[in-house]
Amino acid sequence: MAIYQKLEELNITLSPPAAPVAAYVMYVQTGNLIFISGHIAKHADGSPNAGQLGKDVTTEQGQQAARAIAIDLVGTLQEACGGDLNRVTRIVKLMSLVNSTPDFTDQHLVTNGASELLGELFGDAGKHARSAFGVAQIPRGACVEIEMIVEVA
Amino acid sequence: MAIYQKLEELNITLSPPAAPVAAYVMYVQTGNLIFISGHIAKHADGSPNAGQLGKDVTTEQGQQAARAIAIDLVGTLQEACGGDLNRVTRIVKLMSLVNSTPDFTDQHLVTNGASELLGELFGDAGKHARSAFGVAQIPRGACVEIEMIVEVA
Amino acid sequence: MAIYQKLEELNITLSPPAAPVAAYVMYVQTGNLIFISGHIAKHADGSPNAGQLGKDVTTEQGQQAARAIAIDLVGTLQEACGGDLNRVTRIVKLMSLVNSTPDFTDQHLVTNGASELLGELFGDAGKHARSAFGVAQIPRGACVEIEMIVEVA
Repeated sequence: MAIYQKLEELNITLSPPAAPVAAYVMYVQTGNLIFISGHIAKHADGSPNAGQLGKDVTTEQGQQAARAIAIDLVGTLQEACGGDLNRVTRIVKLMSLVNSTPDFTDQHLVTNGASELLGELFGDAGKHARSAFGVAQIPRGACVEIEMIVEVA
Repeated sequence: MAIYQKLEELNITLSPPAAPVAAYVMYVQTGNLIFISGHIAKHADGSPNAGQLGKDVTTEQGQQAARAIAIDLVGTLQEACGGDLNRVTRIVKLMSLVNSTPDFTDQHLVTNGASELLGELFGDAGKHARSAFGVAQIPRGACVEIEMIVEVA
Repeated sequence: MAIYQKLEELNITLSPPAAPVAAYVMYVQTGNLIFISGHIAKHADGSPNAGQLGKDVTTEQGQQAARAIAIDLVGTLQEACGGDLNRVTRIVKLMSLVNSTPDFTDQHLVTNGASELLGELFGDAGKHARSAFGVAQIPRGACVEIEMIVEVA
């Protein structure tokens, strides 16, 4: 998998995960599965990317937020893999929570921002199952939150 | 497991999964676990079964929608099993999302429509853990969405 | 792991899980993972601890509810472990659903009530991944619902 070449091509720099704002950890490995905690949408400065789809965040902005979360998830994944993303054999599943008004119904389009990036980066190994749905709110008011399960060698 | 006999008895015909409307796949197997993507409620013609519990969908209609989703999930599972549902050793877990107004509190009853069908079809192997809860919205306005984890031989 | 000593120190008595109010089971083991069903917040008498964060339940009350759910989850876990919590090697992941108004954004603080108790009880083995978010409603109107994945020896 030419994952590091792809990251360079897309001009993406990975960051290690920020310490969680609460009493948990950012990932746990059990067997060859890594469960990664829900990552919320953030601005480049680390502050929450807050707002609600259907009110003050457009579908396109939501997609960008989901893409940025996917980059953060891959940064956490890299740490979980001891620094080597070539150990990833499959992105198994995403759960994508979209901060939604009761009439916003394009959670799948928002989530594509994350799914498409993972496909670009990991190719066939990036093809994942997923659930996407609209939630009433997200910690710190973030517009999107995504968690991920990954299989490693 | 007399799964195919049960399907015939209940007059249920399985369909292969529809192609997802987005950048993901309908299931991923890792080890002997199959993670199946969230399936939304649909009408017989494939269009979304839209609406909200507590507003324009009754609990009984929600149960019927959940039962229909379970049939779709079993159709996807059959494909994931290479066409042979006898490989299923356990339905492990459901996550059931019910499109709910802020005062509808019978998500467990709605979800029973799916849980009971899985029990009928798979017997003891169909007894699963689950979470059910009310969400603000679901892609394409569907009234229910369910994802499933299954253990296979 | 001095788990039983810790339980005594904290004056916590575990209870076996109540029978589910619906067509499912409280836990399923597959390989060395135990998937525990969503447990809703309850009062000491077993009735639902109902209410919504941002309306009629404070963050501190929500934390207490989350802590009480964690105790119930550990009671279920003990049964799933055949009575011996020393078989637990890692709390893998929590999913925490907080019954929230559209403007309540402290789901992470509420969920800490559960996360911190698990850390106290299980030490390093209690450090888990998690997702926490606000949902529109929860079965029986409960203010919080939490599900858990655990690795056992």
